[in-house]
Amino acid sequence: MSVKDFDLVIIRHGQSEANKENIFTGWRDSPLSPQGVEEARTGGKLMREAGMRFDLAYTSLQSRAIKTLWLALEELDQMWIPEIKHWRLNERHYGALQGKNKVQSVEKFGEAQVHLWRRGYDTRPPEVELTSGDYPKHDPRYRGVPEAEIPRGESLRDVVARVMPYWQSEILPQIKAGKKVLIAAHGNSLRALLKHLEGVSDKAIEEINLPTGIPKAYKLNKQCLAERAEFLGNPDEIAARIQSVANQTKR
Amino acid sequence: MSVKDFDLVIIRHGQSEANKENIFTGWRDSPLSPQGVEEARTGGKLMREAGMRFDLAYTSLQSRAIKTLWLALEELDQMWIPEIKHWRLNERHYGALQGKNKVQSVEKFGEAQVHLWRRGYDTRPPEVELTSGDYPKHDPRYRGVPEAEIPRGESLRDVVARVMPYWQSEILPQIKAGKKVLIAAHGNSLRALLKHLEGVSDKAIEEINLPTGIPKAYKLNKQCLAERAEFLGNPDEIAARIQSVANQTKR
Repeated sequence: MSVKDFDLVIIRHGQSEANKENIFTGWRDSPLSPQGVEEARTGGKLMREAGMRFDLAYTSLQSRAIKTLWLALEELDQMWIPEIKHWRLNERHYGALQGKNKVQSVEKFGEAQVHLWRRGYDTRPPEVELTSGDYPKHDPRYRGVPEAEIPRGESLRDVVARVMPYWQSEILPQIKAGKKVLIAAHGNSLRALLKHLEGVSDKAIEEINLPTGIPKAYKLNKQCLAERAEFLGNPDEIAARIQSVANQTKR
Repeated sequence: MSVKDFDLVIIRHGQSEANKENIFTGWRDSPLSPQGVEEARTGGKLMREAGMRFDLAYTSLQSRAIKTLWLALEELDQMWIPEIKHWRLNERHYGALQGKNKVQSVEKFGEAQVHLWRRGYDTRPPEVELTSGDYPKHDPRYRGVPEAEIPRGESLRDVVARVMPYWQSEILPQIKAGKKVLIAAHGNSLRALLKHLEGVSDKAIEEINLPTGIPKAYKLNKQCLAERAEFLGNPDEIAARIQSVANQTKR
């Protein structure tokens, strides 16, 4: 993809401290690990080396995605572009699984169930109680979100349902207006977007993993779907990062 | 000042690489030095220790102020609040002095002239040529600024004239709506605001320096002027920082 011939770049945040401990994180706020900081910087450098310039950036309300954006913008020397942070770009809410270790969850519930919770398009995790610290209404950053929209545990289908309105009403109009957009977000909010842009089926999306810290550039067609999509960087490194996500439930 | 009893905090960015080399920086974009990074983090910690929480943050289009904001928000664990970046909060444009060493400028033009340029309320530096790299229209971050508003060299009075409309139309309405606001900006854009809030005369403002990285909290009265104003942190440290700014033209 040439320097100027893209509309959108997505980047999944680098490793967080909770990723490192192999914990279901969801809407819990875990900072980037030192490795995650390096991944984000490398992502920024890849975009800079590709000559990419952005007009506008989006991210979630979660520190690990925001920090990834900040580090990438610093490498791009574009710290000054507008940033918009929105809860609709948050990670999937993992319900009552939040804070649980992935390997221990496999031992307790079995590999098939945990795989379904992690990858099943329609499978919701057990919901959090309204009194739980994991119910987002207790976190001041979600004060402005209507109660009815606050998740208590989401399937990927639920994530698609909350990401798409934001894409359609907020992000896409900016791209249509000619702005080049960077989105720094999460494994599942970005899989939701990728599913739409690349026309991936409900079944096929279950096996698609996004590598951390590797920018993926999109050129959109007239239907505002992916005309071309391309990872930046070394193909072996990309394959290794994808594999490391798939290995998270292995002992 | 108690934890909840403030409307606004201003913080001047920490030392930049250009500050370290004692250069007139103005609208040139110089990153924070390692010391500046520490100053910003310390500023964030002071606000956190005071129990301050913010709803909204403003900064300039210049990396050193943006980075100061980001580091402070990270220390506050409030990376998720909205950030608005605007050129009207930029440092004073130092005209043809930009990039010149302060001590060498004293040797060349004399201490009185340089003091006037640095501190005289009405004194404009020599203007930059339209073809100069220091004319901001050549920088993509200022593409959206109307040509007539683009500075070529500003006095502090000029800075007041461009900061105040932004304060009145954009920032103050947010404070009136009950939002607690953080502004991370520059020596002169913040002196412009301080002059207004604290009712400082054109003459008296010439001798007022803001220390780097030390948050100053304001409670506003019904006239939207300072009812109380207070630096956070150790008074000796604050005095030392103020002195170090005043020493910048000394050999």
